[in-house]
Amino acid sequence: MQELKERIIAEGIVREGNVLKVDSFLNHQCDVTLYQHMGDAWAQHFADKKIDKILTVAASGIGISCVAALSFGGVPVVFARKAQSINLDGDQYTARVHSYTHGNDNTVIIAKRFLQPGEHVLLIDDFLANGAALDGLIEICRQADAVVEGIGIAVEKGFQSGGKRMRESGYDVCSLAIVKSMDVSTGKIEFA
Amino acid sequence: MQELKERIIAEGIVREGNVLKVDSFLNHQCDVTLYQHMGDAWAQHFADKKIDKILTVAASGIGISCVAALSFGGVPVVFARKAQSINLDGDQYTARVHSYTHGNDNTVIIAKRFLQPGEHVLLIDDFLANGAALDGLIEICRQADAVVEGIGIAVEKGFQSGGKRMRESGYDVCSLAIVKSMDVSTGKIEFA
Repeated sequence: MQELKERIIAEGIVREGNVLKVDSFLNHQCDVTLYQHMGDAWAQHFADKKIDKILTVAASGIGISCVAALSFGGVPVVFARKAQSINLDGDQYTARVHSYTHGNDNTVIIAKRFLQPGEHVLLIDDFLANGAALDGLIEICRQADAVVEGIGIAVEKGFQSGGKRMRESGYDVCSLAIVKSMDVSTGKIEFA
Repeated sequence: MQELKERIIAEGIVREGNVLKVDSFLNHQCDVTLYQHMGDAWAQHFADKKIDKILTVAASGIGISCVAALSFGGVPVVFARKAQSINLDGDQYTARVHSYTHGNDNTVIIAKRFLQPGEHVLLIDDFLANGAALDGLIEICRQADAVVEGIGIAVEKGFQSGGKRMRESGYDVCSLAIVKSMDVSTGKIEFA
């Protein structure tokens, strides 16, 4: 998606540890018009799929998913929360997720009543690197007997293993920008 | 807002400790069409105000704010994160927020470059009870010398002190549903 790549080139900041900061438009400050265009792109890619629901993870996936859901006819979005919240029911699906960014483990949680057997689900997230967050969502879908129809990603780090692994597992992954390489010394970002 | 009140009556669950669960449409599963109507209602209420940016808090405020921003011509949304994240810059505004729901204190954080002096800001959140989260956002706006033009709330607990306190402080608070009372034994919910 050209618009997203241009924004990454213009505003993305490369940091040590394979960190690409795009927080001026994607995951701290949110450009909701860009989100609409991202939703349109995913809706076009997954046009032949039946999508009942979008699943994502708090916090960065929520805004993108809620705006993108409008491009899918306003399907519901369910976001997995990290760690236990007393505001959630006891009747929950949970999965452990390792965060390479924060260097810790989290439990992601979805109330069972919001994911039904046989529901057709699109997973959306802002980044795909090692795929740990997606593993958690896929594990929850497996527990719920829901059908993962596809995976919509804003920025895939193509030099990390998650995307390759997901595609080899048979998932239809639509990444709107795939970073082939990035150089912390020059700040240069190249796309696949 | 009649539509929101009807959804609360139909799907809201009253729990001990002044908890009103509306997670089937507002803050776990997200009804994005309802979010659009909420955005339209706030845009109508704040039509005479200049709104440069919407400010909210992770996680429940993000989806509502991003969809609502479309009703304000696609202004940017900035969401405060809870606790330190290594993905954020060192140059941050922070405020301490006590969570009555979770019984702990959090630091909410916004990168300084996403809130400029003189920017006109609308604060949005899913709930207003004691007003602790809003206090944090207002404190950050004070630090940034940004102008709080108004406060958009989905569900205000009118029997708690936050709304009254905000209005007495001079803020234009637009709550789309104000719960006057709720009864944990009967499940009955009454609006102001």
